[in-house]
Amino acid sequence: MEETLKHLSKPELRTILKIQSAALKAVDSFMYSRGILHLMPVMLSPVTDPLSHGVYDSSIIYLDQKLELTKSMILHKQLVMMSNSIPGVYIVSPNIRLESEECAKTKRHLIEFSQVDIELPKASSREFMDFTEELFSYVFSFVKKECEKELKELGREIKLPKKPLKVFDSSELRKKYGEDFERIISEKEKHPFWITDHYREFYDKEDPKTKKHINYDLVYPEGFGEALSGGEREFEFKVIKRKMLERKTDLSAFAPYLSVAEKGLLKPTAGGGFGVERLVRFLTGKEHIKDVTLFPRVPGEKIVF
Amino acid sequence: MEETLKHLSKPELRTILKIQSAALKAVDSFMYSRGILHLMPVMLSPVTDPLSHGVYDSSIIYLDQKLELTKSMILHKQLVMMSNSIPGVYIVSPNIRLESEECAKTKRHLIEFSQVDIELPKASSREFMDFTEELFSYVFSFVKKECEKELKELGREIKLPKKPLKVFDSSELRKKYGEDFERIISEKEKHPFWITDHYREFYDKEDPKTKKHINYDLVYPEGFGEALSGGEREFEFKVIKRKMLERKTDLSAFAPYLSVAEKGLLKPTAGGGFGVERLVRFLTGKEHIKDVTLFPRVPGEKIVF
Repeated sequence: MEETLKHLSKPELRTILKIQSAALKAVDSFMYSRGILHLMPVMLSPVTDPLSHGVYDSSIIYLDQKLELTKSMILHKQLVMMSNSIPGVYIVSPNIRLESEECAKTKRHLIEFSQVDIELPKASSREFMDFTEELFSYVFSFVKKECEKELKELGREIKLPKKPLKVFDSSELRKKYGEDFERIISEKEKHPFWITDHYREFYDKEDPKTKKHINYDLVYPEGFGEALSGGEREFEFKVIKRKMLERKTDLSAFAPYLSVAEKGLLKPTAGGGFGVERLVRFLTGKEHIKDVTLFPRVPGEKIVF
Repeated sequence: MEETLKHLSKPELRTILKIQSAALKAVDSFMYSRGILHLMPVMLSPVTDPLSHGVYDSSIIYLDQKLELTKSMILHKQLVMMSNSIPGVYIVSPNIRLESEECAKTKRHLIEFSQVDIELPKASSREFMDFTEELFSYVFSFVKKECEKELKELGREIKLPKKPLKVFDSSELRKKYGEDFERIISEKEKHPFWITDHYREFYDKEDPKTKKHINYDLVYPEGFGEALSGGEREFEFKVIKRKMLERKTDLSAFAPYLSVAEKGLLKPTAGGGFGVERLVRFLTGKEHIKDVTLFPRVPGEKIVF
């Protein structure tokens, strides 16, 4: 309790929230100027992102129906993109991931956080990466300009990276640095950069020939780690079903989604999502994600408010 | 399933989402221009809004702690406003209210929706009402200008109301129209208007002398009903405790909140919240709230996605 009150009364709080507000304003303006439609989050659904790592169950029962709390908006984004008239969508949604206590160590995991989830129709991975680079450049320069005083207070300098950003292939990084490659290279680099080709959830597209994964992570420099994660999407029923089986997914839990895919209604899209708290942590240069979160839910920590 | 797919493939969808996007853009720009800080939602907490009407339980267990799904951000807004340096806050947050099947009849209830929750320091009810009138005027005129084509497609005309809006006292309306006064007067009026003095949750301020409630609802005309609900807030421990007891609230469930109040840390503020879906329903002139919601959760209806 004392710690929570101390956290909420830090004088720095306004400074951090000002930077967060400017960053969100920049995201919003950028999306609006591109005609990307702003959707509202969905928090309860029979289906949600299966994630590629295990978390504790978070579901409730409403009138005999089991509803999962949203882990990400990926499946709902794909469903909206069925409509040909949609020029792209974004959603700022809470993501609930009841991580194990272990995850507290990373300094950038929370059991609930806000994700800006984006999806563009017919985009290639390179097109989505370009879009993201323009978005992040815009956000960085807007915050730099609008929050000059606040950044000075925090002793933080935001560097504007030159586009296009560097692109690394995960298998080459793994050879060079071992399994912990993301942390190591994030500490070495001076500007945000991409790492491509990650084995993960069924919905990220796989190249049928090379078996490489047509997906990408945007990573912050200076050891701040992952910023955004995304990929081109699978939309063909047979491929989705095979990849779900490879990942030992319970197909019955995804029956309505699979039935949409079987009808051939899913479309080729590419997208990604980035955490607001991680963005603010990077912009403010704070060590721990809880330093920039009003009511931080660190894995394993008791929650007062 | 067929109905859900039909809903998601309506050609009108883009039109409605364009209007929603413009409305949210206007809200964001207005708040930023006023220096109101943009906070991220909290979805899981040991405490949430007790609400003044009963809903089904929505809580989960994480590592032996019971966490409620957010019904509104009211208590968290009050906690943030403890800090003197905060010039006002807003949050676009999902609110989960597992309403009974009965509520489906109103055409404007959902078991989850997005609320724009605002709180201003030291504001009087009239000051908050003025702020709200300026916000809504700005949103209406921005949407009217940016979405001329879309509004024409829907056959909807947005009228810009003259400020200040009419103010009605609930007890006078009750005398004139009976218990269903809100619906009746909403159907009669041509512009949004206020109804003040509602008996409800403990946190809305009560005038110690007159025993009137210093709170307000903004109501849409043409039968669209409630837009925004808010009030000045109680911040004194003794008053909060007495009002909780009057409402048969389980004090132990609010122990940490009460302890903050007892330390004298809560501040005088005023605020309110409005539903995004109801705003979009009014702007588009749609009959049912589910017409403007991508994945509508109507009380009692089975959820496919």
